[in-house]
Amino acid sequence: MKKITIYELCKKINASLLRGDENNVLTSINSLENATENEIVFINQNKFIGETKKTCALTCLTSQNLAPELQNFKNVIVSENPYLSFALATRLFASAHIKDEPKNINSHVSNSFSFISETALVGKNVQIGHNCHVGDHVVIGDNTTIENNVVIYDSVKIGNNVIISSGAVIGSQGFGFAQDSEKWVQIKHLGGVVIHDNVNIGSNTTIDRGTLDPTIIGKDVIIDNLVHIAHNVKIGNSTAIAAMTGIAGSTTIGQRCMIGGMVGIFGHLTITDDVIITPKSNVYRSIKKPGRYASLFPLVEFRVWKKISLLLLKLDKIKSLYK
Amino acid sequence: MKKITIYELCKKINASLLRGDENNVLTSINSLENATENEIVFINQNKFIGETKKTCALTCLTSQNLAPELQNFKNVIVSENPYLSFALATRLFASAHIKDEPKNINSHVSNSFSFISETALVGKNVQIGHNCHVGDHVVIGDNTTIENNVVIYDSVKIGNNVIISSGAVIGSQGFGFAQDSEKWVQIKHLGGVVIHDNVNIGSNTTIDRGTLDPTIIGKDVIIDNLVHIAHNVKIGNSTAIAAMTGIAGSTTIGQRCMIGGMVGIFGHLTITDDVIITPKSNVYRSIKKPGRYASLFPLVEFRVWKKISLLLLKLDKIKSLYK
Amino acid sequence: MKKITIYELCKKINASLLRGDENNVLTSINSLENATENEIVFINQNKFIGETKKTCALTCLTSQNLAPELQNFKNVIVSENPYLSFALATRLFASAHIKDEPKNINSHVSNSFSFISETALVGKNVQIGHNCHVGDHVVIGDNTTIENNVVIYDSVKIGNNVIISSGAVIGSQGFGFAQDSEKWVQIKHLGGVVIHDNVNIGSNTTIDRGTLDPTIIGKDVIIDNLVHIAHNVKIGNSTAIAAMTGIAGSTTIGQRCMIGGMVGIFGHLTITDDVIITPKSNVYRSIKKPGRYASLFPLVEFRVWKKISLLLLKLDKIKSLYK
Repeated sequence: MKKITIYELCKKINASLLRGDENNVLTSINSLENATENEIVFINQNKFIGETKKTCALTCLTSQNLAPELQNFKNVIVSENPYLSFALATRLFASAHIKDEPKNINSHVSNSFSFISETALVGKNVQIGHNCHVGDHVVIGDNTTIENNVVIYDSVKIGNNVIISSGAVIGSQGFGFAQDSEKWVQIKHLGGVVIHDNVNIGSNTTIDRGTLDPTIIGKDVIIDNLVHIAHNVKIGNSTAIAAMTGIAGSTTIGQRCMIGGMVGIFGHLTITDDVIITPKSNVYRSIKKPGRYASLFPLVEFRVWKKISLLLLKLDKIKSLYK
Repeated sequence: MKKITIYELCKKINASLLRGDENNVLTSINSLENATENEIVFINQNKFIGETKKTCALTCLTSQNLAPELQNFKNVIVSENPYLSFALATRLFASAHIKDEPKNINSHVSNSFSFISETALVGKNVQIGHNCHVGDHVVIGDNTTIENNVVIYDSVKIGNNVIISSGAVIGSQGFGFAQDSEKWVQIKHLGGVVIHDNVNIGSNTTIDRGTLDPTIIGKDVIIDNLVHIAHNVKIGNSTAIAAMTGIAGSTTIGQRCMIGGMVGIFGHLTITDDVIITPKSNVYRSIKKPGRYASLFPLVEFRVWKKISLLLLKLDKIKSLYK
Repeated sequence: MKKITIYELCKKINASLLRGDENNVLTSINSLENATENEIVFINQNKFIGETKKTCALTCLTSQNLAPELQNFKNVIVSENPYLSFALATRLFASAHIKDEPKNINSHVSNSFSFISETALVGKNVQIGHNCHVGDHVVIGDNTTIENNVVIYDSVKIGNNVIISSGAVIGSQGFGFAQDSEKWVQIKHLGGVVIHDNVNIGSNTTIDRGTLDPTIIGKDVIIDNLVHIAHNVKIGNSTAIAAMTGIAGSTTIGQRCMIGGMVGIFGHLTITDDVIITPKSNVYRSIKKPGRYASLFPLVEFRVWKKISLLLLKLDKIKSLYK
């Protein structure tokens, strides 16, 4: 169990104690429902204020705005960026809850059912989990974590502070074939994958290698689980991609985009910077203007859907009315 | 090869022999097309009656209603719930066809390229396949099967009679990040995953751990392949989720729901009990009323789609006609 | 580094030298941007002609039509099927770039954290990577490659010249359950999976075994990453299926179809030969006529989507206008 005073915590999470006793000791962070007296809770929205009456926690982290509403806490900590302070607090207390860090390796020979090629270059403080494959000429930067059952094919380059979650496959052959009458002839994809610093890749995600030039994942990009990134895609810095989204070959995504889950982005497109895509949307054309986009059939009861979809299909019967 | 009399079979699958010889011996269950004389076939729908003329099978399992139509079988077995009896029959004959059960382990040290933490608690008659990772403080109940290449992170709790198919990843970090200007700061997800009894999880499915409280999969829930369940999702008892469906963070799904394949359910929603979602639908709002829902653009020839989608986009040109 | 003369290259890729010196030596194939003098580039489209001024490459592969435009290359190679010649060239130079081929095995006992059942039949020149599981009675044909972390369940039959990429799971239980009040009783799927010659299966793809008869993947079928193929699906020869597409149980797909990425095909349907499905489409009915189909809500700015989707839902207010 971790023990940290409120004074120390505030320094580490960029926050300050608005009211209370800075010498009180905290042992963890928890939800309103499950927190004990010595655990801190996080309140970021008005709608949770009602629930604060039931919590055992004496200490909360919140915003300057919500603080006056939180009279039933002994200790109130405020931050200009409360969600960031919350994230930092979870990191601080993490070791007390979960310790699922793969063991450190000091050489290229794994001791845990992982194969690491002798020609791979592995940086300092790199963690590689169980049942991984690290191919020839792979480069892995410092402080990078490869979790379990991850496959990294030949010649993939991975930067510093990268996290690759379990089951991800990086650098497999792109889906490019030439036709020889009814046979498909596989193009051997010779470009690799380049993953820049601070990238986070989710579980069972796949990133294919480029045809001749590499597939590129920019700095600070975060990618969720079960995402597919095809050959020669380029993703700009700080872009976030939620689960199950697929990006087809040779598409370029800008910086600071936020792509919702299960979005399908077609191939050979260009998405500019600062684009937000609603989850589940179909992106079949390039987007040149920053902003928020959507493409979702409305959700209705099934019997309504049958009527509406029929009328939709007959729209050309009334097209004369359009002008 | 298994050998069982019709008399014994009927007792084990809750069925009864309507006509025939209860001492006949059966060796397996098979399709109409491929069955031999000593194999039983299953006929559940009118449309298959025509095909019964060609089968070699002498024995069929069917409903009371269809039985009179099946005069060309020597032995006719009927059941009040024929599909359930069929399921039980497949289980009975399974060992003769497939024996892909992972080997039993009696201790926490695996003999098959699997890592099982010394602090994991593994119940009786648990099967763990090859190349698995079972993290610290994981709890696995009795009679549970973990197939191959499965990753179970720290502190995940798994009940009795659970089946987790190959390649699944349970308890990886949720996709929650705070922004620090253009950097994403990962929230360390400290809640685990709780999987209740009799749950079935498909191949390459991912279930993320909760932020502070756990992600919860209720009793008797069945989940297909390549499903993604995000942090802090709660799924009610007996709900079924088909392949490739994604459920975003903090959404709660009721009991006995049937979610089709490739459905996208947005985050922070509540779906009530007994809801049926058509495959591929977009669920971007909570559902408070049981029933069947859909959200699908109609399938048409591409040239028709181009016309219709254009007219759809111009609907506001005729909005004056709506009243 | 590979060294090959233009004369030799032309013979191997079914092309001919239109202009230049057939004794020049090539070392690899590369992109216009990154190629060196001794590397060949590929130009297939008009739009790349402008970029040829900047390349260092002296040799290009192109079509008869584009050749006259490519005066700044010393050596111009032309082919009647330039994309096929390109594919063959990538294969020729592949060994110089990537060598991520799993090691050959000569027996059923793996030396690389892979389990291969003693009852599996493995052909000649088969490559099996790390951390794989090959179950009982599996058959693997000649020249087939199973990459890393692949799971092949009992009784799956795989043909010759098949490639199965990392993380794929072949032959897991289908998602078929009978209901016993609020409990789901798993049907044990006894049919296997049959994968014919020259099939290519992508990373983290899952193919479930059939209920009684097998799931069938025809000859020359190519399947991308994270695809799901349910129990008893049949896929006709030479069909291509892009990433993240899902095909529900008992559906039959014809020959030479091209199914885009993230398409959802419902169960128990029949898709005829030579059908093209636009990525992300919903296929909820059988398709009897060859051609190109789509089903996509148009992509618009979010505020436009809100207006349009509202009007769509009210189409029945104007249905009187339809006639």
